[in-house]
Amino acid sequence: MSNATALPISALRVRVEAILRNAGLNAIQAGAVARVIAAGERDACKSHGIYRIEGVLRTIKAGKVKPDAVPELVPQEGSAIVRVNANGGFANPAFELGLPALAERARSRGLAALVINDCAHISALWSEAEALTEQGLAGLVMCPSYSTVAPTGGNKPLLGTNPIAFGWPRAGKLPYVFDFATSVAARGEIELHRRAGKPLPEGWAIDAQGNPTTDPEAALTGAMLPFGGHKGSAIGTMIELLAGIMIGDLTSPEVLDYLGTTTLAPLHGELVIAFSPEAFTAGRAGDPFARAEVLFEAIAGQGARLPSQRRYAARAKSDAEGVALTATEMEQLDRLLTLGLDAVS
Amino acid sequence: MSNATALPISALRVRVEAILRNAGLNAIQAGAVARVIAAGERDACKSHGIYRIEGVLRTIKAGKVKPDAVPELVPQEGSAIVRVNANGGFANPAFELGLPALAERARSRGLAALVINDCAHISALWSEAEALTEQGLAGLVMCPSYSTVAPTGGNKPLLGTNPIAFGWPRAGKLPYVFDFATSVAARGEIELHRRAGKPLPEGWAIDAQGNPTTDPEAALTGAMLPFGGHKGSAIGTMIELLAGIMIGDLTSPEVLDYLGTTTLAPLHGELVIAFSPEAFTAGRAGDPFARAEVLFEAIAGQGARLPSQRRYAARAKSDAEGVALTATEMEQLDRLLTLGLDAVS
Repeated sequence: MSNATALPISALRVRVEAILRNAGLNAIQAGAVARVIAAGERDACKSHGIYRIEGVLRTIKAGKVKPDAVPELVPQEGSAIVRVNANGGFANPAFELGLPALAERARSRGLAALVINDCAHISALWSEAEALTEQGLAGLVMCPSYSTVAPTGGNKPLLGTNPIAFGWPRAGKLPYVFDFATSVAARGEIELHRRAGKPLPEGWAIDAQGNPTTDPEAALTGAMLPFGGHKGSAIGTMIELLAGIMIGDLTSPEVLDYLGTTTLAPLHGELVIAFSPEAFTAGRAGDPFARAEVLFEAIAGQGARLPSQRRYAARAKSDAEGVALTATEMEQLDRLLTLGLDAVS
Repeated sequence: MSNATALPISALRVRVEAILRNAGLNAIQAGAVARVIAAGERDACKSHGIYRIEGVLRTIKAGKVKPDAVPELVPQEGSAIVRVNANGGFANPAFELGLPALAERARSRGLAALVINDCAHISALWSEAEALTEQGLAGLVMCPSYSTVAPTGGNKPLLGTNPIAFGWPRAGKLPYVFDFATSVAARGEIELHRRAGKPLPEGWAIDAQGNPTTDPEAALTGAMLPFGGHKGSAIGTMIELLAGIMIGDLTSPEVLDYLGTTTLAPLHGELVIAFSPEAFTAGRAGDPFARAEVLFEAIAGQGARLPSQRRYAARAKSDAEGVALTATEMEQLDRLLTLGLDAVS
């Protein structure tokens, strides 16, 4: 790549953290958010890399995240639920705070849930699914978003893009992890098409009149469609119920009402369910991790790809050569550091 | 309908139970299986109604289910996991046995899991999701099947149709329940197309050479496709991991190896995860059930259908008028009762 810089991941993280500190985030918030943004860029997950920094700054400037928030564990004695109140800060430091307690309860009880309340959300969920696997746990992570997706059969935004991620640990290998929006495409992908002036593939979206469209602008004022028709629509609805309503936090329409825009980070909650494979297999024959490898080999053996492989390949390259950033991206980082909140409207 | 009989649901259940008892099932097995088959027929869920009886008989005749099995609760003190060994019988009596313990643990700990091991499986999962909601719980139910679905990017059967069901309780109303195969279509639907001599819709299946096909016979010897492309494929894989490997029971390829055919009920396990909305919302503002109604009204208000509505409409009709059965279906029931295991090959 011409005019490209290759930054070591740690250098990129430090640079992002400096931007966030300079924009007013306290050390807890800036550290955790910088880690996931740098990890996204490292994995060439462009929609959740440095692209997200401006959204963070806009959200701070709009007063829709508490830059000095300190997450706190809410005691839930005797329960399999670990609750962390993000206290209006980002989800990431709340997840980091809750993870050890979640892992301990999942190991001792077989399964446990982490509820994060009152958090602003800018990160992909795969990093949290991966963090569970580093504890030897399998897990599911989900959260609402804001109303941008029409339920199947409907014609107006109601559901969020409502991502769901899953992780399964693999000995000596990067874990089995998937993470996807329950819309056909993530909103970030539509935004990237808009910026690039490219039409959307068919079937991604409808316009404000409910007609199919390939125009990113029309899609952003219309509605996106769920993946897999009524099945994806049902899963998106389940995420509103479990990771919004059930945990006592906002649904996607409520988030949109609160923010009045989709250009800021949504403020809501998140649900993480962790499983201990050892506890679940206790007393049964076979090692679950060895058996999972047989399944993964059978999938890969017929030419199907396991999820996250493109991210992992990008990660290996970034680890070896540094994270590749274009001259424009480097200038953008400098600009964000220099201008702080003045860089965004 | 000409030549149709309308049987009260209880009369249909008694008739199915008599067929199953006559075929050798003990009272525990026959009662629970007859309840779900009669409920399937009542709801006009034809792929899981009386159509299933022959499969039950074939499985008994092949010795792949223990007709006299008595399920047992396996003690798991201090755990959020309730384990029931079906002891080679059907999943349904095992679920009925485990449900009270599951509900008690979900209420006291916030969430809990029911693991059913060593069960033969012929029923749709919606009846179990619905049973959870009758306890005031939300829940997820999933199980593998046998290898009939190619992972996205692959060309051979590996995953099962791996159904997933979800339920959310509604005060004074039938619950929000979805239940679907993670393949584009359920295997039963392909079988019904084959019997009716009708071509499949595009995108359901590939033939034995990996090429797209609309021929039900070719689909049954080839592979079905996951719903929603790589996302459905990932969810199907997750079900193999959580509801097969993690619970120490067979995956879909292992089930097929064991049975050597897809014409018998799969013998494997099942995973049920139950959530107490009260426990999850504790200390937070808002009543989760009232808030869920707002979401459901918003979905229905834009012309989108909530899942299970067609089933519930059929149920209302069956409750009022009896379950409509054709003359052929009535003759089939008589034949199955008279011939017992001689009715199947």
